[in-house]
Amino acid sequence: MQNDDDTVSLARATLATAQHKSLLFTRPGFLIRRLHQIHSALFLEETREFGVTPVQYSLLTALSQHGEMEQGTLALEIGLERTSVAEVIPRLQERGLIERRQAPQDKRVKRVRLTRKGRNLVNKMAPAVQRAHDRSLDPLPPEERDLFMLKLIQLVEASHAPSAVPLRLRPRKGGEEK
Amino acid sequence: MQNDDDTVSLARATLATAQHKSLLFTRPGFLIRRLHQIHSALFLEETREFGVTPVQYSLLTALSQHGEMEQGTLALEIGLERTSVAEVIPRLQERGLIERRQAPQDKRVKRVRLTRKGRNLVNKMAPAVQRAHDRSLDPLPPEERDLFMLKLIQLVEASHAPSAVPLRLRPRKGGEEK
Repeated sequence: MQNDDDTVSLARATLATAQHKSLLFTRPGFLIRRLHQIHSALFLEETREFGVTPVQYSLLTALSQHGEMEQGTLALEIGLERTSVAEVIPRLQERGLIERRQAPQDKRVKRVRLTRKGRNLVNKMAPAVQRAHDRSLDPLPPEERDLFMLKLIQLVEASHAPSAVPLRLRPRKGGEEK
Repeated sequence: MQNDDDTVSLARATLATAQHKSLLFTRPGFLIRRLHQIHSALFLEETREFGVTPVQYSLLTALSQHGEMEQGTLALEIGLERTSVAEVIPRLQERGLIERRQAPQDKRVKRVRLTRKGRNLVNKMAPAVQRAHDRSLDPLPPEERDLFMLKLIQLVEASHAPSAVPLRLRPRKGGEEK
């Protein structure tokens, strides 16, 4: 059993060795970009048959969790630019996965919701998506995965980039997404 | 002082609480995408005056480290699609930061290198870029940053997505990049 100090010293030594190997290993930004690339590839490998991108899937699951939403709220919910959401929506609409209508009170407000076909697709894709997420952390020893997830959450919650696209982390509803 | 088992149990409990708050926190892929977004925003905040994207900067530093390179090698070096490299190169060339020439032996091979202006820009940007990288991990307690970097490296080195854009991690040269 190691204590925390030993773990930290060991990490520091191993890190120094790795960073001696490649300059890219000194840059968290590079590593994060690469990991994102790896996850996107895994997502595509697992879900190819459905033809849905990670961002499209985020959007569909947000609608599946929260029901009908205003486009701007939807953007906030998944941390996407409003303009990106506006680009993705018509594609999903053409495929009959979502439908859009004007809010009765204010016609400038566009509201979106899943169609039955969209809901079915979200449910059908779920196991493949879960495999992609699981595979993303596969190379870490199982007991380290939770700790790594926790660090990711701390970094994301800190939201320390004032200029980043806003993300509003909304509490879960009682019901679980399927 | 805590032992490893305590750390793991504590992480697991804290993780469960966080994941109860938002479904997005159960998805490493979402967290990685968001962290990438945060880093990109920090990079832009710190380096705005230079008008260089993270990907352009990776490309410029690879050339600064390795000297003249063939475009395909350059793509491998930073884990970018060849087509993305082919898109970025003309922009950097127009700004006079790099120059391109045909290889004397084989005219189909395009070789690229930094101009003096490009080299100066890389050096001048370095402190701002370093600040962006440092700020990316700021919310973690200092003693945890090395451990987190190490996990990122393990995941990137494992390169467990067969279909991801290839990345060839080349050993550092004797000389340090400035």
